[in-house]
Amino acid sequence: MKLFDGGRAPNPRRVRVFLAEKGIAVPLVPVDMGALEHKNRAVSERNPLQRLPVLELDDGTILTESVAICRYFEELHPEPALFGRGALGKAKVEMWQRRMEFNLLTCVAQAFRHIHPAMKEWEIPQIPEWGEANKPKAVEFLKLLDGELANREFVAGDAYSIADITGLIAIDFMKPARIKMPEECTNVSRWHEAVSSRPSAAA
Amino acid sequence: MKLFDGGRAPNPRRVRVFLAEKGIAVPLVPVDMGALEHKNRAVSERNPLQRLPVLELDDGTILTESVAICRYFEELHPEPALFGRGALGKAKVEMWQRRMEFNLLTCVAQAFRHIHPAMKEWEIPQIPEWGEANKPKAVEFLKLLDGELANREFVAGDAYSIADITGLIAIDFMKPARIKMPEECTNVSRWHEAVSSRPSAAA
Repeated sequence: MKLFDGGRAPNPRRVRVFLAEKGIAVPLVPVDMGALEHKNRAVSERNPLQRLPVLELDDGTILTESVAICRYFEELHPEPALFGRGALGKAKVEMWQRRMEFNLLTCVAQAFRHIHPAMKEWEIPQIPEWGEANKPKAVEFLKLLDGELANREFVAGDAYSIADITGLIAIDFMKPARIKMPEECTNVSRWHEAVSSRPSAAA
Repeated sequence: MKLFDGGRAPNPRRVRVFLAEKGIAVPLVPVDMGALEHKNRAVSERNPLQRLPVLELDDGTILTESVAICRYFEELHPEPALFGRGALGKAKVEMWQRRMEFNLLTCVAQAFRHIHPAMKEWEIPQIPEWGEANKPKAVEFLKLLDGELANREFVAGDAYSIADITGLIAIDFMKPARIKMPEECTNVSRWHEAVSSRPSAAA
């Protein structure tokens, strides 16, 4: 088994943090996305969408999409449960995972890809107006999230889950995307400090 | 239990098709999205993101996000399995579900929301250039999908899954978004005809 990894990009990091929380070590194949190596044959043959990470099993089976790779490991190694427990617990993690993905991570990523000069060759056409339109969407969601985190420790409830991982990588990605955390979001900041201090955050 | 439903919009339909495949009947509360009723108090109180569908359990617990609602029912009623079987099967469904969502449904929805005159009050600011940029992304993914469907019956393998449901609603949504199925995509067309002829497609 080997994991084609994309360094600092959000989705590769999401899987590395997940594996660190599970205590699972998977051999990494580094791919330099800055040098556009994910467009090379090694990745394209395995994932025609040319996205990372890509997991290759020993029999050659390919899994792509960060959350699908995480779910594979959740099924093989259920503890600690990072996709929730029980019907309602699993549904709540899915709900918050998707809210974090569509209302935060996607907005931050669109702002980065459509505004940052380094993304000119990645996002064609780059549409700065669309990038700018995503910044207030992300900020608005952070304010909503702040109210939620006033009443509980983690994004989807009392236990750390993949929704926290998606939130962590999204908020850390706000720096290169030049989106500032609203000062009034003290609960989000407290939560972000807590998840950032876990050893997995360094993965 | 009751499901606040949004009629013809893609995500409400996704849940209705899923429930029909499972043979589960849930009382529906119709919400007229054309009249912006999803911005009214009944929905906003339950989902501050003002999106549909919303599932309310008998104890008042709220679940939002179409795929989270589907996963709740999958856990309560595992058969027929629509999120896959076994670690690899579940991971493959998640992988294809996400590919259909990010590379097809999202692109079709962005084209619709940023170009269609009826969406002016929904998508602020409406950026037609971004809408147009999404059309070739959807078409390119359909061509990739066509190669995959040359070798198997359903999107994620030999069994019908939620990835097929997401694909069905995305392709049916291409009509109002004014994206044409590429003529050469004969395998996608064959698959679309097959999933459209299932009784659930009328849900």
